[in-house]
Amino acid sequence: MRDINQFTVTKAVKESFKTQPGSRFEQLLQGLIDHLHDYTREHNITHEEWMGVLNFLYDCGQISTPERHEFILLSDVLGFSALVDMINTKGGATEGSNLGPFYLDNSPRKALGSDLADNRDGVTVLVHGKVTDSLHNPLRGAIVDTWQADAAGTYPIQEQEKGQDKYDLRGVFETDAEGRYYYTTVLPKPYTVPYDGPVGDLLRAGNRHAWRAAHLHYMVRAPGMTSITTEVFFENTEYIDNDAVFGVRRSLIAKIQPMKDISALGFELEKEPDAMFEFDFVLAPEG
Amino acid sequence: MRDINQFTVTKAVKESFKTQPGSRFEQLLQGLIDHLHDYTREHNITHEEWMGVLNFLYDCGQISTPERHEFILLSDVLGFSALVDMINTKGGATEGSNLGPFYLDNSPRKALGSDLADNRDGVTVLVHGKVTDSLHNPLRGAIVDTWQADAAGTYPIQEQEKGQDKYDLRGVFETDAEGRYYYTTVLPKPYTVPYDGPVGDLLRAGNRHAWRAAHLHYMVRAPGMTSITTEVFFENTEYIDNDAVFGVRRSLIAKIQPMKDISALGFELEKEPDAMFEFDFVLAPEG
Repeated sequence: MRDINQFTVTKAVKESFKTQPGSRFEQLLQGLIDHLHDYTREHNITHEEWMGVLNFLYDCGQISTPERHEFILLSDVLGFSALVDMINTKGGATEGSNLGPFYLDNSPRKALGSDLADNRDGVTVLVHGKVTDSLHNPLRGAIVDTWQADAAGTYPIQEQEKGQDKYDLRGVFETDAEGRYYYTTVLPKPYTVPYDGPVGDLLRAGNRHAWRAAHLHYMVRAPGMTSITTEVFFENTEYIDNDAVFGVRRSLIAKIQPMKDISALGFELEKEPDAMFEFDFVLAPEG
Repeated sequence: MRDINQFTVTKAVKESFKTQPGSRFEQLLQGLIDHLHDYTREHNITHEEWMGVLNFLYDCGQISTPERHEFILLSDVLGFSALVDMINTKGGATEGSNLGPFYLDNSPRKALGSDLADNRDGVTVLVHGKVTDSLHNPLRGAIVDTWQADAAGTYPIQEQEKGQDKYDLRGVFETDAEGRYYYTTVLPKPYTVPYDGPVGDLLRAGNRHAWRAAHLHYMVRAPGMTSITTEVFFENTEYIDNDAVFGVRRSLIAKIQPMKDISALGFELEKEPDAMFEFDFVLAPEG
């Protein structure tokens, strides 16, 4: 390894790792080394530029806490989170989208027809739809776990010190015999990702905004099916065409409509809605 | 940006940055996005794998302090620091190598012939050579700034709490009219890079050791010339062929020899050496 130069050093680095031949670890490591060494050579990166990259990562690490993972945020604004969601969406299933930082794995179970808004201001919307397999067979007993921001673009979990309950605007529903879920809630508004750290500096350097299009978060699962994590957006709302984290997909945009007579659906609702939209989730089999 | 898929998201991300067209920032950013998106697609990275990468970076950030920059260490063990050194070595000049974490920019000036060892145990070696331009013209008044570990592989700066002076085993020399520098010091030994953090975990996962071949650090400069930062290694010493940070180059290996009569050279030495080696530094013009 004394005869290395800028072209042979890449092979030397890869061979320094004694990994299981053909293992996933070896593939992922070698692929990463290949791509990033190529990048460094192609652009003749200077010492100052490279230290800039390393110090940027250092700064991301310094601002990170158990509650704030700046590297996930970096992944989000550079489209990696979206790309991984896309790569891992199963054929025929609802497209995946950002998990985001505010998921709680023990949200309260709610009866179908409940209102999640807890008297918050805003437009009350009826959300309903079905969970089905990819042949449109309804899935009874599927779990629809949802969480969202309020009409100011804030998650209650962000304002616990102001007395908000972190479990507000969350609920876990179980679909009925026809695979249906339905509830009312307040329409969420756009909000910004955190931009007071290194990732914010990057956005500013690139003249980018930090706004996310308004959305509802969903995690949907059913026995024998592959769970999905996704978001539902709304037609004709702000940032729908330039979401800061590339979360929007055409298939995930719902159209909000004025209330019509839905008595035929037989929903028992806790609160009277102002508007409604319908969104169906499709799950693919496990494996 | 609602019609993005795993192939078009890369273009969408690049276009979201409103950078100066053709600027270095734009080139570096777009190149990085291209390479890492390609990597993600080529390997069908899963959510778990991607979170593994992001959490690894998070852990690197958490262990980093102003005295410990885990991202530089990561760059070192993956050969990026070596690659950047290689890319930026000027034609005809001495090859560059790692700066490392222990440089001090205000080391003491020493007279030619001084001993840097301050009575430390070990083999006393005479180090001498010339600083020249690439046509072998000697450079008078060139600055040779050196720092090193002791015969236990430790830098005094690492043991200040044990009473060691951080400026020991360091010196700044000025070449004489013939471009010569010469001094005695103790031969350094190999040491390990820090392996108690995430980078250590990576080395262990790849069955790699953390040892650096023994070396002396140099920063050499002269008016009108491009400064170099490099290391000098020793023939037939441990880890010379598998240095943990890929710092060794054939051109940077010196051969230590028994003392011979050097009276013709006319050196006045503070201490009697046991052995000697010669190493010339070649600087290229600025710009």
